[in-house]
Amino acid sequence: MPALPPPTLVIRNIGELLTMNGERTIPSATGSVGIISEAALVARGERIIWLGPMAQLDEIAFESSETPPQIIDAGGKVVTPGLIDAHTHLVFAGDRAGEFQQRHAGASYEEIQARGGGIASTMRATRAASYGELVALARERLRSMRAHGTTTVEAKTGYGLDRESEERLLTVAVHFAAETDLPQVVPTFLGAHVVPPEFRADRAAYVRAVRDEWLPAFAGRAAFCDVFCERSAFSLDETRSILSTARRLGYHLKLHAEQLSRSGGAALAAELGATSADHLDCAGDADLDHLAAAGVVGVLLPGCSLTLNTPYPDARRLIAHGVRVALATDFNPGTCYCENLQMMVALGIAHMGLTLPEALLAVTRHAAAALALADRGTLAPGLRCDLALWDIPRHDAIGYHFGVNLVTGVVIGGRPHPPAPPVSSWEPCAPSSR
Amino acid sequence: MPALPPPTLVIRNIGELLTMNGERTIPSATGSVGIISEAALVARGERIIWLGPMAQLDEIAFESSETPPQIIDAGGKVVTPGLIDAHTHLVFAGDRAGEFQQRHAGASYEEIQARGGGIASTMRATRAASYGELVALARERLRSMRAHGTTTVEAKTGYGLDRESEERLLTVAVHFAAETDLPQVVPTFLGAHVVPPEFRADRAAYVRAVRDEWLPAFAGRAAFCDVFCERSAFSLDETRSILSTARRLGYHLKLHAEQLSRSGGAALAAELGATSADHLDCAGDADLDHLAAAGVVGVLLPGCSLTLNTPYPDARRLIAHGVRVALATDFNPGTCYCENLQMMVALGIAHMGLTLPEALLAVTRHAAAALALADRGTLAPGLRCDLALWDIPRHDAIGYHFGVNLVTGVVIGGRPHPPAPPVSSWEPCAPSSR
Repeated sequence: MPALPPPTLVIRNIGELLTMNGERTIPSATGSVGIISEAALVARGERIIWLGPMAQLDEIAFESSETPPQIIDAGGKVVTPGLIDAHTHLVFAGDRAGEFQQRHAGASYEEIQARGGGIASTMRATRAASYGELVALARERLRSMRAHGTTTVEAKTGYGLDRESEERLLTVAVHFAAETDLPQVVPTFLGAHVVPPEFRADRAAYVRAVRDEWLPAFAGRAAFCDVFCERSAFSLDETRSILSTARRLGYHLKLHAEQLSRSGGAALAAELGATSADHLDCAGDADLDHLAAAGVVGVLLPGCSLTLNTPYPDARRLIAHGVRVALATDFNPGTCYCENLQMMVALGIAHMGLTLPEALLAVTRHAAAALALADRGTLAPGLRCDLALWDIPRHDAIGYHFGVNLVTGVVIGGRPHPPAPPVSSWEPCAPSSR
Repeated sequence: MPALPPPTLVIRNIGELLTMNGERTIPSATGSVGIISEAALVARGERIIWLGPMAQLDEIAFESSETPPQIIDAGGKVVTPGLIDAHTHLVFAGDRAGEFQQRHAGASYEEIQARGGGIASTMRATRAASYGELVALARERLRSMRAHGTTTVEAKTGYGLDRESEERLLTVAVHFAAETDLPQVVPTFLGAHVVPPEFRADRAAYVRAVRDEWLPAFAGRAAFCDVFCERSAFSLDETRSILSTARRLGYHLKLHAEQLSRSGGAALAAELGATSADHLDCAGDADLDHLAAAGVVGVLLPGCSLTLNTPYPDARRLIAHGVRVALATDFNPGTCYCENLQMMVALGIAHMGLTLPEALLAVTRHAAAALALADRGTLAPGLRCDLALWDIPRHDAIGYHFGVNLVTGVVIGGRPHPPAPPVSSWEPCAPSSR
């Protein structure tokens, strides 16, 4: 084996390294997710260049460099790929805590809407917020997500609902590409979230604006186009019209599908070759077969079920149909104010029928697939060095030990957060006794 | 008003101070829980000596002292009583993460028991652990609880199940009285948790040992005696026999009642004047009426429902019957590995029908009642200065913003954790602009 280039980061003394690259790569994998015990991992820049058993680290030849690598001692604990949150509404202003509490004190959705609540209240607050305010709010949320192990975050527009405001939200999401110490943000254009009040009398005009004006204008800046396909939002025909145009313009596609009613959105996602179909609470068996056949990832969002006190989606059923399952927070002010993907893993195992390996795949490999990202979600040489460092000696504590943050740090593109303490030489990299 | 003695701690600039002493003190209170906006709080030693609107702080005369008080600026955020976790199995060794994951991968309880799992595996690990190991494990858990806002923790024995081991667990719980920077621990003797294997052939002998030997020996060290009244544990007659003796010996009483089946435990709790009846998932209407009439607090444990994927207890129903509801973690290795009471508040609101005021009462005032502690759970002069400091400007974020830790620090008996930064004089106590 030829010498590897000089490392910039070495993580040693890893108790369990979960590569998520197991031998069984089928969606229903309940077996190995790829675990190396007593492992080490080496990166150069933002990429992994080596990983394997700790005992082999000394046998690897590295080219010398004047700059010693950063060294992290994982203390015999668990390291996984950085978690990937494939469905969030990251950028908005205001909160709806009062509305949440009123609802759980017995107020109906109609009463809350009559008091000016619901999505319209977030739209108003978001439209009124400046670019700087929105960046600051999103940054705070990204920091909280990072603190809980997340290194990639999808971020939807959809609370602006006019050209200028939607573009502001998109620009905020794109902005974070320059902040390399934060999770990477994948921007999604969700102009078709709901029809805004000023278009209620002519919803066709809103669909035309989204499809014929905004979509072309935002192409290249948003990676995905998403539509909320639902009785209260956009019809199947409207959804097809918008997403077909988006596909021609080079967007990847997502759908909010089958959340509150059986809309036909899942079958449409399969027909259009969408990357993911999200929610799926009301999907029928045929819908799931379509998704499986088309390779569409099913993104399930248990935080909504907790917030709304509705049944948790049955992930087991998706897996039985051969659909790859991702779990995401759906972080948003109305139906899930939670930045912590670990919570979704716990709910996925406790209430949705997922096994631990399936739940871990759902926030790593399958979540990467839900974002059409081939460079992350698993760990191997050549892939991004995005990691979550856990404060547990065995991965089976994940989901079992719930409601607290088990992650102590992350690595994003080869850079540790919190930063690793400085070291003076390459020598400390030799294996120590455990 | 005469001058107050010199303060040792001043907390200023509190956005919302929740005293939990509202005008409506009935169990079904859904209204005020006592909120002072823009407030301050002053303590001397471990007791509160004043609280009220920030604007009145300068009008209060304090005797002078050479030692300036510690000053905490709450930054316009929320302060509540320190949270009280009224039901935990704090002291044990080992974990059952593997068993949890096997169960959620489809293994039956019988299969898990056949593999040596279940409560017996915790008993074996706990019996094998030294006093020092058990203290270290409990201390780590108490630190995590404290980090999540908890300042008082009930701690049951029950994983020793022989004289020597039960006494060791009890001594561990009592030990923490000397560690004043940790939550205060209220020890409960739960020798009657299950019949240990060596007594299976003669369960009456085990009941006699608990009742006639261990109970008298441990009197004065454990504040409570608790019995798991359930088909798989102890019968109603056995429970009555043990608890009646405990009452004569001066113990306060608790019962694990109506968890897995309708056992009659709730009515027995009322008959014996128990302080609390815990779990109550299967309690009937008459049971709840008995509890309400006798003033027994109902302690509900939603973490078990999450872990076991069973229906959440209906707290609304208890309140409708006039039962005071407390929420606790039930922290234990088998059915709830979670130290975070905020999680139980979120589940209480989301899945159990509690309003936010009711859920807050359930981890403060009513939790104190479930431990027969009159000196905490609400905030007023003369009561303990046990506080939770929250990183939120309005208390309605509690439960809404879930799955993360919203608490930044606590005060235990007038001592802040993490410690407040040093200040040189009393002057900074004057109100600043916000």
